[in-house]
Amino acid sequence: MLDVPIVILNVKCYEEATGEALNRIIEAMNKTSLEYGVSAAIAVQASDIYRSSLVSKIPILAQHVDAVDYGSFTGHILPEAVKFAGAKGSLVNHSEYRLELWAIDSIIKRLKSLELTQVICSNNDDVSRAVAAFEPDFVAVEPPELIGGDISVSKAKPEIVSNSVEKVKGISKRTKVLCGAGIKNSEDVSKAIQLGADGVLLASGIVRAKDLYGACEDIFRGI
Amino acid sequence: MLDVPIVILNVKCYEEATGEALNRIIEAMNKTSLEYGVSAAIAVQASDIYRSSLVSKIPILAQHVDAVDYGSFTGHILPEAVKFAGAKGSLVNHSEYRLELWAIDSIIKRLKSLELTQVICSNNDDVSRAVAAFEPDFVAVEPPELIGGDISVSKAKPEIVSNSVEKVKGISKRTKVLCGAGIKNSEDVSKAIQLGADGVLLASGIVRAKDLYGACEDIFRGI
Amino acid sequence: MLDVPIVILNVKCYEEATGEALNRIIEAMNKTSLEYGVSAAIAVQASDIYRSSLVSKIPILAQHVDAVDYGSFTGHILPEAVKFAGAKGSLVNHSEYRLELWAIDSIIKRLKSLELTQVICSNNDDVSRAVAAFEPDFVAVEPPELIGGDISVSKAKPEIVSNSVEKVKGISKRTKVLCGAGIKNSEDVSKAIQLGADGVLLASGIVRAKDLYGACEDIFRGI
Amino acid sequence: MLDVPIVILNVKCYEEATGEALNRIIEAMNKTSLEYGVSAAIAVQASDIYRSSLVSKIPILAQHVDAVDYGSFTGHILPEAVKFAGAKGSLVNHSEYRLELWAIDSIIKRLKSLELTQVICSNNDDVSRAVAAFEPDFVAVEPPELIGGDISVSKAKPEIVSNSVEKVKGISKRTKVLCGAGIKNSEDVSKAIQLGADGVLLASGIVRAKDLYGACEDIFRGI
Repeated sequence: MLDVPIVILNVKCYEEATGEALNRIIEAMNKTSLEYGVSAAIAVQASDIYRSSLVSKIPILAQHVDAVDYGSFTGHILPEAVKFAGAKGSLVNHSEYRLELWAIDSIIKRLKSLELTQVICSNNDDVSRAVAAFEPDFVAVEPPELIGGDISVSKAKPEIVSNSVEKVKGISKRTKVLCGAGIKNSEDVSKAIQLGADGVLLASGIVRAKDLYGACEDIFRGI
Repeated sequence: MLDVPIVILNVKCYEEATGEALNRIIEAMNKTSLEYGVSAAIAVQASDIYRSSLVSKIPILAQHVDAVDYGSFTGHILPEAVKFAGAKGSLVNHSEYRLELWAIDSIIKRLKSLELTQVICSNNDDVSRAVAAFEPDFVAVEPPELIGGDISVSKAKPEIVSNSVEKVKGISKRTKVLCGAGIKNSEDVSKAIQLGADGVLLASGIVRAKDLYGACEDIFRGI
Repeated sequence: MLDVPIVILNVKCYEEATGEALNRIIEAMNKTSLEYGVSAAIAVQASDIYRSSLVSKIPILAQHVDAVDYGSFTGHILPEAVKFAGAKGSLVNHSEYRLELWAIDSIIKRLKSLELTQVICSNNDDVSRAVAAFEPDFVAVEPPELIGGDISVSKAKPEIVSNSVEKVKGISKRTKVLCGAGIKNSEDVSKAIQLGADGVLLASGIVRAKDLYGACEDIFRGI
Repeated sequence: MLDVPIVILNVKCYEEATGEALNRIIEAMNKTSLEYGVSAAIAVQASDIYRSSLVSKIPILAQHVDAVDYGSFTGHILPEAVKFAGAKGSLVNHSEYRLELWAIDSIIKRLKSLELTQVICSNNDDVSRAVAAFEPDFVAVEPPELIGGDISVSKAKPEIVSNSVEKVKGISKRTKVLCGAGIKNSEDVSKAIQLGADGVLLASGIVRAKDLYGACEDIFRGI
C-alpha cells in the first residue's frame, strides 16, 4: 500500500503526457516528491506503463484495468499484465471510465489478490459509501460540481471533504480518502489534509501547466 | 500497409502470452516468418506493445484502440499512444471487443490518418459488406459457426471464404480479406489462400500449442 | 412500499410471457396472491406495463429503467413514463441488465422521488453491502452459484440467506431482503423466510411451468 | 413498408410527449397527415406503444429494440413484444442510442423477419454506406453539424442530402433515405425532397413547438 499523505497524478490521454512528453512529467513528479519528502504516484496510459516504470522511482499506476482473468479476451487490460509491466496499482471507476457495479467488485478483488493498490473514484457521498463496502485502499472523491470549475473545495465547500471522509470511514475504517476535484494550489491541499483527506488526485492542473515544476511544487508544498 | 499473404497472430490475454512468456511466442513467430519468407504480425495487449516492439522484427499490432483523441480521457487506449509505443496497426471490432458502429468509423479514420494498419473483424457476410464501406486495409472474417470448433473452413465450408472475399471486394477493391476461424493446419491455410483469402488471423492454435514452433511451421508452410 | 413477505415474479422476455400469453400469468398470480393472502408483484417488459396494469390487481413493476430525465433521449426507459403507464416500481441492476454504479445511484434517487418501489439485484455479499448504501426498498440477492441450478438455497446453503440479510441490514436497516435464486418449492420459500428473508424473486419456475397454477400455489404456500 | 414521401416524428423522452401530453401530439400528427394526404409515423417510448397504437391511425414505431430473442433477458425491448403492442417498425441506432455493429445487423434481420419497418440512423456518408449494406427500409441521415443548429440543410448544405442519397442507393437501391437534421420549415422539406430524400425524420421542431398544429402544417406542407 502506498504511503499517505499522497499526491496522485492522473496524466489522462493529454497530448502533453503522450510519448516523449510524458518523460518530463515523470521527472518533475519524481524530483518534487523527493524534494518535499511526500509520497506520490502517477497513473499513465496502459501502453506507457512499462516504459514509465523503467524511469520512475515513484510508483506507476494503471488508469483502468478490466474485470477479466487470463483467457480468450482481446483488447482488454488484464490486471496481471499491468503488474508485469510495472504498475503498482490502478485507478478504478474513474468518472471518464465508469464501470458496472459487478465489475468494480470483481476488479477490486483481482487487484487485492495481486497486491496492487486500488483507487476507486466516486462522485458523491452515497457512491462513496457504496464503494467503501469493497474496503479498497483508497476512495477518491470527485464531486461533479467541483470538477473543472473555479470553486476551491477547501475554501468554498470544506464540508464536502469532511463529509466524504466521515462517510467512507463509517463503512471501511482502513480506506484512505483522496480529494479529487477543486484543488487549485497549496492552500487547497493543506486545507483538504486538515479536513481529514489522506491526499489528492490531480490531472490537468499539473499535466497542462506551463510551469510544470512550479505547479508540482505548489501542490506538494501544501502537504 | 503490411505485405500479403500474411499470418496475423492475436495472442489475446492468454496466460501463455502474458509477461515473460510472450517473448517465446514473439521469437517463434519471428523465426518462422523469416524461415518461410512469409509476412506476419502479432497483436498484443496494450501494456505489452512497447516491450514487444523492442524485440520483434515482425510488426506488432494493438488488439484494440478507442475512438478518442488527445484529451481528458482516463483508461482509454489512444491510437497515438500505441503508435508511439511501436504498434504498426490495430485489430478493430474483434468479436471479444465489439464496437459501436460510429466508433468503428471513427477509429478507422484515426488509424488511417496515423498511417496505422487497420484490421476490422466481421462475423458474417452482411457485416463484412458493412465494414468494407470504410475501405480498411483488412477485413478478418470470423464466422461464429467456425470459431473454436472442429469444422475446417477450407474443407467443410470453402464457400464461406470465397463468398467473403467476393462480398468485401464488391464494396472495396483495395481491402484484403483474412480468414479468421476454422484454420487448423497447413492444408486449411493453403486452401484459404487458393479460395482468395490474403492470409489468416489466428490465436489459440499457436499461443496454446504444446509445440510452439511446430504449430507456427504448420501454419506458415500453408502459405 | 410493497407489503412483505412478498413474492415478486420477473417474467423476463420469455415467449410464455409475451403478448396474449402474459394475461394467463397475470391472472394466475392475482388469484393465488388473493387466495393465500400474500403480497405479490409482477415485473413485465416495458411495452407490456400499460396493458398489464389495466388488468392486474397486484402491482406491476418495470424490469429496468434508465438513468435519464425528461429530454432529448431516444429509446430510453424513463421512470416517469413507466409510472404513467401504471408501474409501481422497478427492478434495478438485474444480472441480465447490469448497470454502471453511478447509474444505480441515479436511478434509485429518481425512483424514490417518484415514489416508485426500488428492487436492486445483487450477486454476492460485498455487492449487497454496496447497494444497501443507497438505502433501497429491496435488495434481491441472486448468488450466481444458485442461479438455474439444482441447489436449493434453504437446504443446501442456508447461510447465504442469513448472511445476506445481516450484511444488508448492517448498512441499511430499512431495506428488505429478497432471496433471488435457488427457490424450487414451498419448503425453500418457508426456509428462506425463517432465515430472515422478506420474500422471494422468481422467474422461470413460474413462467415456464407446465402447471401454472400449481407452480404459483407451491410458492405462495411457503410464505 | 411505409409509403413515401413520409414524415417520421421521434417524440423522444420529452416531457411534452410523456403521459397524457402524448395524446395531443398523436392527434395533431394524425389530423395533419390526413389533411395533407401525406404518409407519417410516430416513434414513441416503449411503454407508450400499446396506448398510442390504440388511438393513432398513422403507424406507431418503437424508438429502439434490443438484439435479443425470446428468453432469459430482463429489461430488454424485444422486437416481438413491440409488434404485439402495436408497433409497425423501429428506429435503429439513433444517435442517442448508438449500437454495436453486430447488433444493428441482428436487429435488422429480426425486424425484417417480423415484417417490421427498419429505420437506421447514420451520422455521415461512410456510416450511411455501411448501414446500407444491411438493405434496410430506411436510412435516416443525421449529420452532427446540422443537429440542433441554425443551419438549414436544404439551403446551406444541399449537397449533404444529394450525397447521402447517392451513397445509400449505390449500395442498396431498395433503401429510402430520410433527411434527419437541419429541417426547420416547409421550404427545407420541399428542398430535401427535390434533392432526392424520401422524407424527413423530426423531433423537437414539432414536439416542443408552442403551436403544435402550426408546426405540423409547416412540415407537411413542404412535402
